[in-house]
Amino acid sequence: MRPAAARDRGLAWPAPWQPRGAGGMPLAVAWPAAASSAHPLADAAASAALRRRGDEIEAAFSAVAPALQSLAERQFEAGFAERAAAELRHRLDLEVPPAWFEARWNAPLDMPALHARCVLRTFARLVERGFDASHAASSDGEPVAALIQRWGFHAVDITPCADGRLAGVVDFILRVPAAVVAYRRSYAGAMFDVEEALAHWEAVELRRWREGRPNAASEPTRYLKVGVYHFSSVEPAHEGCAAHGSDTSRAAASLLERLQQFAAAVERTHCCGASVAILLVGVDTDTDAIRVHVPDAAGTMAVDRYVCSARLYAATQDLAREAAKEAIRQAVADCAGVAADDAATEGMRWFCGYLLKNNLAQVDAVRARYGGPYPERGHDEKLIVVGDPIDDVQLRNLAFQAQMDSVEEGAGDLAVGVRILGARHRELGVAVPVLVLQRYDARIPGARERAQARAARMAAAVRDRHAAAVAGGELWVEAALRADGGANLEFVATAAAQRRCGCGTESCG
Amino acid sequence: MRPAAARDRGLAWPAPWQPRGAGGMPLAVAWPAAASSAHPLADAAASAALRRRGDEIEAAFSAVAPALQSLAERQFEAGFAERAAAELRHRLDLEVPPAWFEARWNAPLDMPALHARCVLRTFARLVERGFDASHAASSDGEPVAALIQRWGFHAVDITPCADGRLAGVVDFILRVPAAVVAYRRSYAGAMFDVEEALAHWEAVELRRWREGRPNAASEPTRYLKVGVYHFSSVEPAHEGCAAHGSDTSRAAASLLERLQQFAAAVERTHCCGASVAILLVGVDTDTDAIRVHVPDAAGTMAVDRYVCSARLYAATQDLAREAAKEAIRQAVADCAGVAADDAATEGMRWFCGYLLKNNLAQVDAVRARYGGPYPERGHDEKLIVVGDPIDDVQLRNLAFQAQMDSVEEGAGDLAVGVRILGARHRELGVAVPVLVLQRYDARIPGARERAQARAARMAAAVRDRHAAAVAGGELWVEAALRADGGANLEFVATAAAQRRCGCGTESCG
Repeated sequence: MRPAAARDRGLAWPAPWQPRGAGGMPLAVAWPAAASSAHPLADAAASAALRRRGDEIEAAFSAVAPALQSLAERQFEAGFAERAAAELRHRLDLEVPPAWFEARWNAPLDMPALHARCVLRTFARLVERGFDASHAASSDGEPVAALIQRWGFHAVDITPCADGRLAGVVDFILRVPAAVVAYRRSYAGAMFDVEEALAHWEAVELRRWREGRPNAASEPTRYLKVGVYHFSSVEPAHEGCAAHGSDTSRAAASLLERLQQFAAAVERTHCCGASVAILLVGVDTDTDAIRVHVPDAAGTMAVDRYVCSARLYAATQDLAREAAKEAIRQAVADCAGVAADDAATEGMRWFCGYLLKNNLAQVDAVRARYGGPYPERGHDEKLIVVGDPIDDVQLRNLAFQAQMDSVEEGAGDLAVGVRILGARHRELGVAVPVLVLQRYDARIPGARERAQARAARMAAAVRDRHAAAVAGGELWVEAALRADGGANLEFVATAAAQRRCGCGTESCG
Repeated sequence: MRPAAARDRGLAWPAPWQPRGAGGMPLAVAWPAAASSAHPLADAAASAALRRRGDEIEAAFSAVAPALQSLAERQFEAGFAERAAAELRHRLDLEVPPAWFEARWNAPLDMPALHARCVLRTFARLVERGFDASHAASSDGEPVAALIQRWGFHAVDITPCADGRLAGVVDFILRVPAAVVAYRRSYAGAMFDVEEALAHWEAVELRRWREGRPNAASEPTRYLKVGVYHFSSVEPAHEGCAAHGSDTSRAAASLLERLQQFAAAVERTHCCGASVAILLVGVDTDTDAIRVHVPDAAGTMAVDRYVCSARLYAATQDLAREAAKEAIRQAVADCAGVAADDAATEGMRWFCGYLLKNNLAQVDAVRARYGGPYPERGHDEKLIVVGDPIDDVQLRNLAFQAQMDSVEEGAGDLAVGVRILGARHRELGVAVPVLVLQRYDARIPGARERAQARAARMAAAVRDRHAAAVAGGELWVEAALRADGGANLEFVATAAAQRRCGCGTESCG
């Protein structure tokens, strides 16, 4: 099965989970010692831009606690509320009403809740900030959207795990331009709903037929659904995917099965040769390295057959740029078990190589910054986002995002997030901020009102489902709306069922 | 505005809610005295078939209580369980396990729950029974599906109120063949979700583009969404739509607005002249007469402009058949404010006339049977169906059906149903049967398992939402699956959280 070329080069499906540690977990991939010279496929400019962006995002959230701490001690002073609002404007760039800071001797400010509220508004401010995403818009000088289409895919749908360590999956890990991502919805364990995915495919296909967008339905391109699971190379048994019991094999196999079900759903419910492309990708959350499970000539993927970017990184770091790219191409072809010039598989192989090349730059960036894996292996998310997705601000450990239409169906995902963030936030003595986000199409009459009703309903359901945590001040839930097309977040009042902060303002719970 | 012809004939928009009763309610339309001679548009054969069917359905449900009553007294006799199961097979044609009837001296049978379980299985048996629906398949000898398409509509989507008095809306009141109804989903007050309706439209359009089903997208036909509200001509202030406070104007205006929002959603989110047809219809639940709000030349409808079939009935009962049909055509044209040969509106006018003609036969059937309005004006539903729709068994007051994807979003609709049926069932001393129905496409791998998970989740949510009623034995919740394409109902076990009946069988709660 395994071509000699791949064995010799040691790049493709490197007898992956052999030898295995306890519980069938793969042992850590040896991490090359930090080198002063960058990898030939490093992208210094893009990585520097992403690093600056990441630092700005981190700094914005880190500033919240000190700002509130300095205010807490003065809360009973005369004229405090106005001064506090002014200070927040100055220090955090947040516009909040002075009423948030009206403390009484028998009702001091609820600082854990205020922290959560400021975190949510900091997130909203960063969304408004509109980070430049041009670093990923082209690849070797060509516009990526056109490239991807030329290689056979008219839409890319990415389903990662809800885990916050994948919160930078589009911008940082895969470095795919957000504009080419038709859908990005996250679920605990990446366990998406097949029927919902089918509806997304139908919506995209109808646009192609009716409007020729993004290309005409007569073009022989396919819808590509990418499923992203994750694992920890450093602590595989503890820092893997919580939804799959930190079992990498299970995480990969479950997602692969779900992807295959989706492909079968399209083929069996639509005639005329309807078909989609699917791709399984694993992320090592310690290094941002990926495993790309390249489909073979029959389109089949396997859990234990993949190209690992960490190994590729080591194998190509001393090569010239073109030789490194050629090594990627060869590794992908070897993994697929086809010749490097096989026409039938070239589109998918190009895409796999594109992801791997992008990811090598990210692996290099992480390594350059930390001299090895991320120092923080575990969770450090700032907030939970439930409801509709939002991708304008991306960063590892930014948010635990679980997409759902109701808390009733997403209760399990939400519980994972609350458990994960709860532990960390309890230590810090602040409430876990939960943002219920509902998007709407402003062109549809009544859409905003219906979105508001959905947001209020889901916020109430989150509070109801986690009533004890809300009553204990450990969870702070707010709802926001967003018009499609990149508008700002609009916080909305929802029927209050959480601990009162006493501010009496509209947007308060 | 109002053509003289219409005024003279007194058929079209007959100054409809003038004079008004208290609260702006229309006064009752005078009901013609029962005549021995049938209406020229009566359909004796179809009406007789529908009457036989209705009688069979009523008889099946009515037999449950006496059968159980005769068993209750003997529950402690030796060998009772087997005999009881045999008796149910004989008397109700139900196959139930003897374990249902294992009573102990300190745990007698829960007869209110057993009644609910037998009602649910009677419903399932009637679904399996497969009633002949050929009475509506043709109109004046022509196949209706082809006719409707020829008149410009490739799909008919009907959204009635969840109220059980509309449970016969397709088969009895509108007499439309079920096969031409692409979607029928009910909501309290008929308040459907615009975004979901848009997705249904998209799914239908994609089939047309990809597969030419039911016709090619190049054909200039439209998707027709019919919204059905209801009112009571006899007790307008009490027996109207509960979701709209028994306010007919509000029920009609709210639904009209929703339909207009749907039409705008299609037009504004899809290019290339995408558009749909919408039609507002009101049902008088006392007589099954309808109000058809015929769109004018601009496609505009008004709450107070419609053709009323009760008036049409009176106006045409002494005419010959062809003259009566001509009177309908003229009434529709007058209501639309166009000439009877206006080409631009002829498709919609044909459809309105088709509904009115069908409905006259139903009005006649009700009148012939009861000599006037239904003797039971209020609610008398046998069960509540939530989740996915089921239309194989139709009959006035059969089921309160509220479609929803989660109880969280449909809680309001469910509450209306529980309140309505609760009052009646409490009087009778039996539990309200709630069926959580989930449909699935058996061609999609894993679809049945996901449907089962959804069914279990929703059944648990219904029990949770109405915990006191469940604990008090007033509500009995079961879940069933159904493969698309008319398969039988499959009752499934769900995590039990309801009062134990002690039977220990799989399908028990």
